[in-house]
Amino acid sequence: MNPSRGLQYARVHRSRFVAELKEFLRIPSVSSQADRADDLRKCANWLARHLRGVGLEQVRIVPTRGNPIVYASWLRAPGRPTLIIYGHYDVLPGEPLREWRTPPFTPTLKGENLHARGASDDKGQLFSHIKAIESYLKTVRALPVNVKCIFEGEEEIGSPHLTSFIARNKRALKADAAVISDTRMLAPDRPAISYAQRGGLRAELEVLGPPQELHSGSFGGAVLNPLQALCEMIARLHDAQGRVAIPGFYDDVREWSEKERDFMARSGPTDEDILRDAKVERGWGEPGFRLYERTTIRPALTLNGIAGGHRGPGGKGIIPAKAIAKMSFRLVPDQDPQKIAQLFRDHIERITPAPAHSSVRTYSPIEPALVNRNHPAIKAAAVAYKKGFGALPVFIRSGGSIPVVNTFQKVLGVPAVLMGFGLPDDHIHGPNEKLNLPNFHKAIATSIWYLAAAAKLRGSEINTRTMRRGASNA
Amino acid sequence: MNPSRGLQYARVHRSRFVAELKEFLRIPSVSSQADRADDLRKCANWLARHLRGVGLEQVRIVPTRGNPIVYASWLRAPGRPTLIIYGHYDVLPGEPLREWRTPPFTPTLKGENLHARGASDDKGQLFSHIKAIESYLKTVRALPVNVKCIFEGEEEIGSPHLTSFIARNKRALKADAAVISDTRMLAPDRPAISYAQRGGLRAELEVLGPPQELHSGSFGGAVLNPLQALCEMIARLHDAQGRVAIPGFYDDVREWSEKERDFMARSGPTDEDILRDAKVERGWGEPGFRLYERTTIRPALTLNGIAGGHRGPGGKGIIPAKAIAKMSFRLVPDQDPQKIAQLFRDHIERITPAPAHSSVRTYSPIEPALVNRNHPAIKAAAVAYKKGFGALPVFIRSGGSIPVVNTFQKVLGVPAVLMGFGLPDDHIHGPNEKLNLPNFHKAIATSIWYLAAAAKLRGSEINTRTMRRGASNA
Repeated sequence: MNPSRGLQYARVHRSRFVAELKEFLRIPSVSSQADRADDLRKCANWLARHLRGVGLEQVRIVPTRGNPIVYASWLRAPGRPTLIIYGHYDVLPGEPLREWRTPPFTPTLKGENLHARGASDDKGQLFSHIKAIESYLKTVRALPVNVKCIFEGEEEIGSPHLTSFIARNKRALKADAAVISDTRMLAPDRPAISYAQRGGLRAELEVLGPPQELHSGSFGGAVLNPLQALCEMIARLHDAQGRVAIPGFYDDVREWSEKERDFMARSGPTDEDILRDAKVERGWGEPGFRLYERTTIRPALTLNGIAGGHRGPGGKGIIPAKAIAKMSFRLVPDQDPQKIAQLFRDHIERITPAPAHSSVRTYSPIEPALVNRNHPAIKAAAVAYKKGFGALPVFIRSGGSIPVVNTFQKVLGVPAVLMGFGLPDDHIHGPNEKLNLPNFHKAIATSIWYLAAAAKLRGSEINTRTMRRGASNA
Repeated sequence: MNPSRGLQYARVHRSRFVAELKEFLRIPSVSSQADRADDLRKCANWLARHLRGVGLEQVRIVPTRGNPIVYASWLRAPGRPTLIIYGHYDVLPGEPLREWRTPPFTPTLKGENLHARGASDDKGQLFSHIKAIESYLKTVRALPVNVKCIFEGEEEIGSPHLTSFIARNKRALKADAAVISDTRMLAPDRPAISYAQRGGLRAELEVLGPPQELHSGSFGGAVLNPLQALCEMIARLHDAQGRVAIPGFYDDVREWSEKERDFMARSGPTDEDILRDAKVERGWGEPGFRLYERTTIRPALTLNGIAGGHRGPGGKGIIPAKAIAKMSFRLVPDQDPQKIAQLFRDHIERITPAPAHSSVRTYSPIEPALVNRNHPAIKAAAVAYKKGFGALPVFIRSGGSIPVVNTFQKVLGVPAVLMGFGLPDDHIHGPNEKLNLPNFHKAIATSIWYLAAAAKLRGSEINTRTMRRGASNA
């Protein structure tokens, strides 16, 4: 199927596509905030309506114990291959709000960038595929392949209900490849396909002191300060060189061959690229590894935030009653999140200073993932990038964690095609997130080309079973 | 002048006194929050009106560059001694609000305790003296001594404008002694006079990382985390035994004789008393000193709070852009707050890990203070306690810092009589602050007795000069 009419349609409708994306971005679908459940439902409804509008079929809002999964398909190409298209409609919080130049949920166009929370991660990327599908269905009234869209609302909280949904619908979700657009390119003219993801584990460390705040004049110097104890414990999570100091932490970390490290050095970002993207002058971390390696083939432990004591304006002479640190591990093959959780607990127990009491909560374990970069579905993606962006993609490893990559590979047995459209300076997860609109339109074109290229993959049987719920309500 | 009619009046009007105090407590006069300036003014106006109502004269609201000072006097006892009565009408913030069982600015009676922010520190204690004065003026229409009341609105932020007010009004404020009720007793039946105060210094330490939050997947392990660096620096402010690890910090700390330490052991709270008050099982801090000593004759550095990174519900995979710690020093003779500030800056410069950038701000320096516990004005206070509480007071050192003690002693040359009425479990500075009402009524009686006992001190000249402003507006 020739993509030229679809490409033409996408060119003509550019400004409408952007206007629709703005509507999508306006819904504050923040999955980590419990009071946003209504906005998540609203966003799922908006998305389902939109999918029906572009001509997708079997559109369903599948309830889970958390936020619903939006499913849609188009299965009218018997004998042709089937692609899963995955994305997530949930976003991170907009906080800290005062660091945004425009409000996070008021999408604002500045030059060629559209600023909003979720613009790049992941509403904008997800929307590229929807617009590619629309461009076929509204012109030639057919797609070159069968598609099954899975758009979830819990990626940013570790996709707690997606795996069970996929496992329960294994037959209905049979496919030849799963396309995931939730990663980034190296630069506007340097597309990239990610063939590795770090795993993850979140942890909260709480230290308890006196049962309530104490006056630091009356008790300062005589009563343990839990916030000070927390800091002293955090100081023992890394050594002076920046290596994680948890005993056993590196035991299962896979060593890569010189050949692979050379490939990474040739294809991946340089130290200078990474420093420029981070807008910092100097790197930090484990000696003996390039910055690209430190963020991909080496694990990390990042302190994400601390809550303890007085944080408002002015001073307050108190000893806090408790202190909490939130942190996240990024894990690499062959680390096991459960084993890391245990090593962390053991270490915390060892370093908790008397008479403090500490407790650890770990959650959102994600296994590290690797994709065979020579799979035909991935080679087809390279062709599509060349058409859409005028350049062949480089194959890179990603430092982030997309829980579903493992699920697709292990549960469904399909390769995950990590076809990223984000740019390094999109500020995903930070204030002033943006989507570069020229990139967005090239992403749509690339998706149009990919649907065409994927038609040459081995076809799968069509399966139209009804979706099962993400989790049993029993 | 026989206090019996005043004592009788105070007994009869108990419930009205409490009702009036509740009005006073309802005004959220939080000096550390810039947006409360109107409430401070409102509180000063309320207090001035009240002082006029009880029969005090020359009532004035003296503007300063910050919150006004409320002044009032009664000078119709020529030849008799003059007492300054000092208190503060400002309070600490109510935050964290969710830890209060009743709202901090909705005074609530529970059994014999009145719960509200400021109930004990210092509105309730200040009010005891006002009600004692009223009890004389509404019965015998005269006081046994001359009084000059100075009620400030900036004690909780280090009294930045009080010293200049007192220095500019040295002649008008001539007196024989200054009574300050802003300290505590050891127990309801164990009154106490504080003869020593720790000094203080507040500090903020900020560590800067990347110019904005970064995604911990993309950059975790390769970019310095300012919150982690802050924790590592805080861990280097104390040694493993709980001593402050800033070089030179203890150089000027006065060593006390065995005789004085024995006196402290006999008169002051035991380790068990302090642990019970703090509701903790074990002490912490500098070896070789009792807990009472650690909080009075030994200095301390207390971490009051940290602001950095994600603090809300759920996780957020970020490297924060910056982190701030708020802390407070408690200093003892002969430490100099300015010298300590410099030692702290030098230490922070030394321990800031590359490539972090740190900055230090210090403010609210307060010198440590000592009072001669054998002064006649203090002996008179002992007599009054015996009458009001049925027990002679013990002489104790206080761990807190009342900036004005030094000012009265150094600028006016009058002894500071630290006649405290608070109880150890009043939760001053914490959630659920309260005032014990039986104690409040005994405090009023004690003040009535003290005004009578003070009549025997050497009298001073009367001076009715107009008050000067606390600070020049030039």
